[in-house]
Amino acid sequence: MAEGLFIKPIAYIETDFQEKFGIPRQSGRAESLSGRIVFLPEYRNPDALRELEGFSHIWLLFDFSKSHREDWSPTVRPPRLGGNRRVGVFASRSPFRPNPIGLSSVRLERIEETEKDGIVLHVSGVDLLSGTPIYDIKPYLPFSDSHPDALGGYAEEVKEFRLEVVFPEELLAMIPAEKQTALMECLAEDPRPAYHDESERIYSMLFAGQDIHFTVEKGVLTVVGID
Amino acid sequence: MAEGLFIKPIAYIETDFQEKFGIPRQSGRAESLSGRIVFLPEYRNPDALRELEGFSHIWLLFDFSKSHREDWSPTVRPPRLGGNRRVGVFASRSPFRPNPIGLSSVRLERIEETEKDGIVLHVSGVDLLSGTPIYDIKPYLPFSDSHPDALGGYAEEVKEFRLEVVFPEELLAMIPAEKQTALMECLAEDPRPAYHDESERIYSMLFAGQDIHFTVEKGVLTVVGID
Repeated sequence: MAEGLFIKPIAYIETDFQEKFGIPRQSGRAESLSGRIVFLPEYRNPDALRELEGFSHIWLLFDFSKSHREDWSPTVRPPRLGGNRRVGVFASRSPFRPNPIGLSSVRLERIEETEKDGIVLHVSGVDLLSGTPIYDIKPYLPFSDSHPDALGGYAEEVKEFRLEVVFPEELLAMIPAEKQTALMECLAEDPRPAYHDESERIYSMLFAGQDIHFTVEKGVLTVVGID
Repeated sequence: MAEGLFIKPIAYIETDFQEKFGIPRQSGRAESLSGRIVFLPEYRNPDALRELEGFSHIWLLFDFSKSHREDWSPTVRPPRLGGNRRVGVFASRSPFRPNPIGLSSVRLERIEETEKDGIVLHVSGVDLLSGTPIYDIKPYLPFSDSHPDALGGYAEEVKEFRLEVVFPEELLAMIPAEKQTALMECLAEDPRPAYHDESERIYSMLFAGQDIHFTVEKGVLTVVGID
């Protein structure tokens, strides 16, 4: 019986999130949020991706690299559940787990051969910090992986959650056009840390190199500044 | 940036397959094939599973423990594609990959508190060798994980594949009633190694401690003996 396994990154992802603050809490929540997967030199081989272009979605197994801890706790508090309800770590997708490996399905937009980085994958619907190490990429097999009628437990209670986003036009114009939709989607997901609900407070989220300042009151997020 | 991660099993699964021969090639292919997940003592904690019972499906991240190799090959030959077509390892679910971690979604049938093994999970639709180390268990979130319209690439070409199974009644009676359906499903998946197609040959598959002998000719698998 195996006593453990040492795994090594095969790739890294680049996204518009340089900090954890504001990253969508599951893949697909911000459909437009894009990422670029760059392989490590050893794995930079077009053959390893042969016929991948026929799949619309792929699985990423990645490192919860900012969430490594020496110990593990049997329960966690999912941020969406109000901050007091504890569920089992194996009943959650929390990054704080015995083996800190994450699992995300993302849309495969295109495969590009580049001069600088060799073959790269463009994906969307990501929920990953820029620089996250990727351990494996697998094709999404709809007939094995898709269970549209699966029961989603407590997570079903909060899946419809969205904030209304008020983004004044003159501020939105400061964001590159191709990133506006993704940013709006991320804001609607409520970037605040769990358990925060201070209507007077101005929060800041770093997105694509810009600081987005906003307030939240009664389910409405209002962007108040960008720098 | 993380340079790698050492992961340790949290659990093992017990199934009716003591050998690799005949294991279905994806989860859910043999819906009735059941497994029992036993946690290692350190993780044998009901709190770690709190609220898991609300989910109908779970993800297993597991060790392809019989498929470790020193090297990796950029391409693999999926058994269903006839044995000559090579696809990229990251376009396949092959066990022979840089980090030999497998991913399966299985149905969570029930959670049982036992005297001998503590809390155990009963699952179905498995595709795992008995004794396979499990690294992580995550709830299946239908709104993030289910993409029924995803394009399944080359794998779509062969997803309908099934053999017709002829299982004489007197032989079927030798199999415990509760295991008959699962066995029939596994046989329909064609347990033969890839590239084998010898109609005269008698193949043997070890299932639940019994040797199932069969032949295959023109899409029909016939069970010819059990011992």
